[in-house]
Amino acid sequence: MKAEIISIGDEILIGQIVNTNAAFLGEQLLNAGIPATRTVVVGDDPGEIAMTVRTALERADVIITTGGLGPTHDDVTRTAIASLFSSSLVFSPQVFEDVEAFFARRGRSMLPAHRDQALVPECATPIRNANGTAPGFDIQRDGRRLFVLPGVPEEMKAMMTDYIMPILAALSDDAIAVRTLLTTGIPESTLAQLLDTPASLPDDVSLAYLPSPFGIRLRVSSRDTDRTAATRRCDAFVDTILDRAGEFVFGEAPVTLAGLIGTLLREHGMRLAAAESCTAGTLASMITDVPGSSTYFDRGVVTYSNASKTDLLEIPASLIEQHGAVSAEVAVAMARGIRRSAAADIGISTTGIAGPDGGTDTKPVGMVWIGFNADGVSFACRYLFGNDRIRTRQRASQAALDLIRRHILGLPRSSSIVSETIHFS
Amino acid sequence: MKAEIISIGDEILIGQIVNTNAAFLGEQLLNAGIPATRTVVVGDDPGEIAMTVRTALERADVIITTGGLGPTHDDVTRTAIASLFSSSLVFSPQVFEDVEAFFARRGRSMLPAHRDQALVPECATPIRNANGTAPGFDIQRDGRRLFVLPGVPEEMKAMMTDYIMPILAALSDDAIAVRTLLTTGIPESTLAQLLDTPASLPDDVSLAYLPSPFGIRLRVSSRDTDRTAATRRCDAFVDTILDRAGEFVFGEAPVTLAGLIGTLLREHGMRLAAAESCTAGTLASMITDVPGSSTYFDRGVVTYSNASKTDLLEIPASLIEQHGAVSAEVAVAMARGIRRSAAADIGISTTGIAGPDGGTDTKPVGMVWIGFNADGVSFACRYLFGNDRIRTRQRASQAALDLIRRHILGLPRSSSIVSETIHFS
Repeated sequence: MKAEIISIGDEILIGQIVNTNAAFLGEQLLNAGIPATRTVVVGDDPGEIAMTVRTALERADVIITTGGLGPTHDDVTRTAIASLFSSSLVFSPQVFEDVEAFFARRGRSMLPAHRDQALVPECATPIRNANGTAPGFDIQRDGRRLFVLPGVPEEMKAMMTDYIMPILAALSDDAIAVRTLLTTGIPESTLAQLLDTPASLPDDVSLAYLPSPFGIRLRVSSRDTDRTAATRRCDAFVDTILDRAGEFVFGEAPVTLAGLIGTLLREHGMRLAAAESCTAGTLASMITDVPGSSTYFDRGVVTYSNASKTDLLEIPASLIEQHGAVSAEVAVAMARGIRRSAAADIGISTTGIAGPDGGTDTKPVGMVWIGFNADGVSFACRYLFGNDRIRTRQRASQAALDLIRRHILGLPRSSSIVSETIHFS
Repeated sequence: MKAEIISIGDEILIGQIVNTNAAFLGEQLLNAGIPATRTVVVGDDPGEIAMTVRTALERADVIITTGGLGPTHDDVTRTAIASLFSSSLVFSPQVFEDVEAFFARRGRSMLPAHRDQALVPECATPIRNANGTAPGFDIQRDGRRLFVLPGVPEEMKAMMTDYIMPILAALSDDAIAVRTLLTTGIPESTLAQLLDTPASLPDDVSLAYLPSPFGIRLRVSSRDTDRTAATRRCDAFVDTILDRAGEFVFGEAPVTLAGLIGTLLREHGMRLAAAESCTAGTLASMITDVPGSSTYFDRGVVTYSNASKTDLLEIPASLIEQHGAVSAEVAVAMARGIRRSAAADIGISTTGIAGPDGGTDTKPVGMVWIGFNADGVSFACRYLFGNDRIRTRQRASQAALDLIRRHILGLPRSSSIVSETIHFS
């Protein structure tokens, strides 16, 4: 079985918004075992919409459209669909009640245009909308299934998850088991070597390497008429990955590395503090994106100038002069300084050349020292992150978090992207 | 004239990546006066690719494809296109030289697969790739124009901007003048009231309100066979916007507010320092995303705990006890403390309830005080940003930057989203 996605809206065609809805639906359809073979984006034009849906119905078993169901004059999907099926619009008392209840909850009054939201093509079963006013439609025709959804992401997602996915599970002969492992601190090529893929990949398991600035995500999936068999094969290959490259896997989607660090720090009753130069707030921001991070993150400093390193971290000016601000010595002094200031268990620091200027032959743009200090442990690791300023700041922050993860879990420091490590007493 | 976009790649269909390329191309095509009427995403399947391109050639004057030009076995666009036009692949010495030069610059050695990148459909003119190995193709057929581009965003964007846009400008009968004004500190509805749109909008000028967490972007455009006329109308309406809501407009795309602040600080020879509680690094990170920010940004502190506010900013514990950490008094003390520590011209601070927990009736989740201190100026502004933790942190950081902009430019403090301002002597 196969599916097609039709995204409706001028704002997508002209690039005012990025088509994240199609990405969400594509992933869901894959998980349901009915992968999308085509996505089409068309504007708010009834003729184009009807023609595109008709063509899709000739090719695909399942079609999902999003967008154009709102109450304004450029929302034309409902009438286009009704006319395609020569169906009239009929008033649905249930949808009307839902719309009334929605406005009552928000304490807003209903406009006449909103009453029209209760008009439903006669050929369709309405899909109720818990998060907005526009209902979706479920239409069956000649063994094909057409779902018409609103374009507002939360409304669309809820209908997909709650209403459509169970139907697709029943429709599809295949079940797909999926697990997404999150790695960090290892390049794709090294990871592929460690995992020995594709050679070691069982025939009935798929593996995708999905790069991001924060690390490679590994999407493991298996497909079978028998869900248990699919799950077992998927789990078995996940175990293989963990055997071969487990130290690089920090969790499974949707956890973040900062979220995991938070859990670990809390479990161990440990407190963290950060001193940043080149990342300049990016690391603290990632740590504190996690709700409740104030329980384990005490403080941070952004010490851009040399004077600020001396003022806030008590680093002797002579040390900076001797080794340079971007050095293992200063990185460790920063980590020690902030740990002492906060009386924290772990002090972490970054100092490097974010670029685009300021690089030299021995200290090129993208070179970052990350300093670490905990009870009896002091070291600095050197990384080479490349030319992109923002990317380097993100990658350095992620690498800093990974050093904390490895310290708490008792894992060795990763050698795969660290170019040098210096220990201090 | 109209255009179609064809995005090629399984990874887009299954939602592994979001189709940002199509958004970029859609915006560019609109700017070129040849708007896209359809975007199609297909997988890495030669038959599907050829069929989709053939169908698009029947409808559109300009077709742009992206993706599937790399050196791996699932990159099949080149052969699909060659076979569609019954064209053989020929070796291009110039492309080969480009690929060789690319590897030389990176200090990497060329694999045999990369030599094949120099194979070009005989019917095509290669489009040179300054940022990667895969050339693009430019094919003319029956008055239609097909551009085949790689999927790597930087490579695709450079070819679109440098090679294709000048060709489209010559092709299009219409010129479109576009200017995008960036506003901050004002909600869409208030902005629409100030501008009195759509009532005040001239017939031949379009205006789009594009919301983002950082403010509303205003896209003004006008279309005409005469470029000068289009530009004049567009500029005239931009002047109207500046007359009516100029204080909220901080610049035109692609500047950022942090970038503008950097320019202003440099021009005035001023230095900045930041003390963050609820934004916790987000503000410093935004400031230092700007290359060269070390010339005007001296230092920042992330004072999450009360003890850190006392240690790093010399705020008396009694002041925090009396007013609470989230208060106008503490906000201003933080701004003063960091300004004094850095001997900077401007000290800025944030303290608030980012959520999801920690809110009370009088200090609800989303409430943020921003403190400001400069020579003879001390005040704090209160904002109510809503329930989303990350959004609140971003919006508070942007609001802090806007206070700096308004101070340097001598503009009044914005009243539209500030719920209260308290001045201190």
